[in-house]
Amino acid sequence: MNTPPPTTLPWEAAAELLRNARRVLLIAHVSPDGDALGSTLALTFALRNMGKHAVPTCQDQPHPRFGFLPGVHEVRQALPPGEHFDLIIALDSSDIARLGTIYQPEQHAALPLLVIDHHITNTAFGTVNVIDPSASSTAEIVFALLKHMGTPITPEIANALLTGVITDTQAFRTSNTTPQTLANAVELMRLGGNLQEITRQALVLRPFDSLRLLGAGLASAQLEERVAYAVIPQKLRAELGVREERGDGGLVGMLISAYEVDIAAVFVELPNGEVEVGLRAQPGFDVAQVAFEMGGGGHPAAAGCTLPGPLREAVNRLLPRLKQAARGR
Amino acid sequence: MNTPPPTTLPWEAAAELLRNARRVLLIAHVSPDGDALGSTLALTFALRNMGKHAVPTCQDQPHPRFGFLPGVHEVRQALPPGEHFDLIIALDSSDIARLGTIYQPEQHAALPLLVIDHHITNTAFGTVNVIDPSASSTAEIVFALLKHMGTPITPEIANALLTGVITDTQAFRTSNTTPQTLANAVELMRLGGNLQEITRQALVLRPFDSLRLLGAGLASAQLEERVAYAVIPQKLRAELGVREERGDGGLVGMLISAYEVDIAAVFVELPNGEVEVGLRAQPGFDVAQVAFEMGGGGHPAAAGCTLPGPLREAVNRLLPRLKQAARGR
Repeated sequence: MNTPPPTTLPWEAAAELLRNARRVLLIAHVSPDGDALGSTLALTFALRNMGKHAVPTCQDQPHPRFGFLPGVHEVRQALPPGEHFDLIIALDSSDIARLGTIYQPEQHAALPLLVIDHHITNTAFGTVNVIDPSASSTAEIVFALLKHMGTPITPEIANALLTGVITDTQAFRTSNTTPQTLANAVELMRLGGNLQEITRQALVLRPFDSLRLLGAGLASAQLEERVAYAVIPQKLRAELGVREERGDGGLVGMLISAYEVDIAAVFVELPNGEVEVGLRAQPGFDVAQVAFEMGGGGHPAAAGCTLPGPLREAVNRLLPRLKQAARGR
Repeated sequence: MNTPPPTTLPWEAAAELLRNARRVLLIAHVSPDGDALGSTLALTFALRNMGKHAVPTCQDQPHPRFGFLPGVHEVRQALPPGEHFDLIIALDSSDIARLGTIYQPEQHAALPLLVIDHHITNTAFGTVNVIDPSASSTAEIVFALLKHMGTPITPEIANALLTGVITDTQAFRTSNTTPQTLANAVELMRLGGNLQEITRQALVLRPFDSLRLLGAGLASAQLEERVAYAVIPQKLRAELGVREERGDGGLVGMLISAYEVDIAAVFVELPNGEVEVGLRAQPGFDVAQVAFEMGGGGHPAAAGCTLPGPLREAVNRLLPRLKQAARGR
């Protein structure tokens, strides 16, 4: 049932690097998401099962949300002092800057570097680059590589890989979800991956205080000319006892889910007074252009930018432009 | 890749009924959900492609949410007067009462009745009963039957069937989702089913006013001893301009999504002053027993009951019992 992986990818060259390595440093990108962590841990487990020494790293500490992932507490935020490696693997990272402080050119530039990624913007910065933009997640490329090598895929590996698939597709809801994505998920479930538990832990569960923030945000929501917007002042967090200083609790995703809305915006006041703006658009509308004009970026359907405060001024500045975009301009 | 359908099911007897029929009455259950509508429409299309006359019916009008489904406006809420049929098919209906006013014993009792359903509580009330409780949706049983018959599965049929799968599993999030469910979804996508669009239309999109209701509900939410609860007074709907007289806008599902919560309850005041209570529990907790004691029912993870008003009294009556359940009793 599987479409074979694209034959142009250097599967054998990658397998050769893995087979020849003894001491492997794996690096997940900064601010790691579920795919960076899942693909890094899956490959770590597989290398250890092959008898290799493998160290998973990431400059930033994984979000507590990923605490359910076996091995996540082994992910180190710094290079283990005095250790030497003979292979580096960069996972889910589109360029070398995404490796953060873990990658040290003076120590690492002479070593072979295996890049495994699904971002179309990948700069192919490795010795061997396994980059497949048609994959919904890096985890699926690691899955194909492990199958190419005939390495046993344990339930632990299957769960780590399925976490990558689920988080990068919002459990099969994003437009990058293909029949092949689901077919991979079927295989990973049959290998021991627990779809429901991963979805619950990685996507559904959240702190109770974020629900209060979401409620206050929704209560403040306005709808003007098919543009929905809401504000989250910094003092609201204090009032509601919300611990996180950033984020909208999923508010912008809820605003864009209304029939009457083509473009949604949430304005979040940051501790320094700046305003972080999250933007979403229905299919056929483009918020990337608006974000770009304001010094931000993103995709047509999901983008963002940071504006100077105060909050009210940021709203007044952006709202007319968003209404223009909702009229298709 | 497919597990073959259970061999004990009477596939051939069902196929025989369909092949021999000329004029077929299809009945979806009262208050039709996406699976009842999707499986009924898919089988209607397939029968028409086989040259049969097929009339899809349901006592109640489909919710506007299902307006995207091709053929949904052809679903009739009454028997076409003067028409005669030679086969009746009951879809997604666990007993004959679920067929509502469409099924008229004096006209229909003498006709062959094909029952296709996945509810474990099905009373096997047909001449031929294709009942598979291991299927996540009735649509998957219809899919297996069409494959058994070798009938072409058009994109229109694939989309109707995929709607059944997606709605009955909340897009693969419920515990009845098996690898076989996903494998069926893969096949249906390859046959032309549009996963993203169906998910968006059937599960994501909602009226803007329901977001305001949700916001007000979340803002009122309380957390006591791992029980989260919220109230929706009838006057709140008027204040917010909410058109629907019932429902919680998804509130109870959000409350149960918090780490700190084992049991969630939403108390909705009805126009007649009674209070409709929606209950949810994390795995390992049971709200069915509580609902049952109050004259309601449901599953351990999701149940409900209706209590006399006023609102505050209903909360005071149920809350101590919910705290007991959250302590595991």
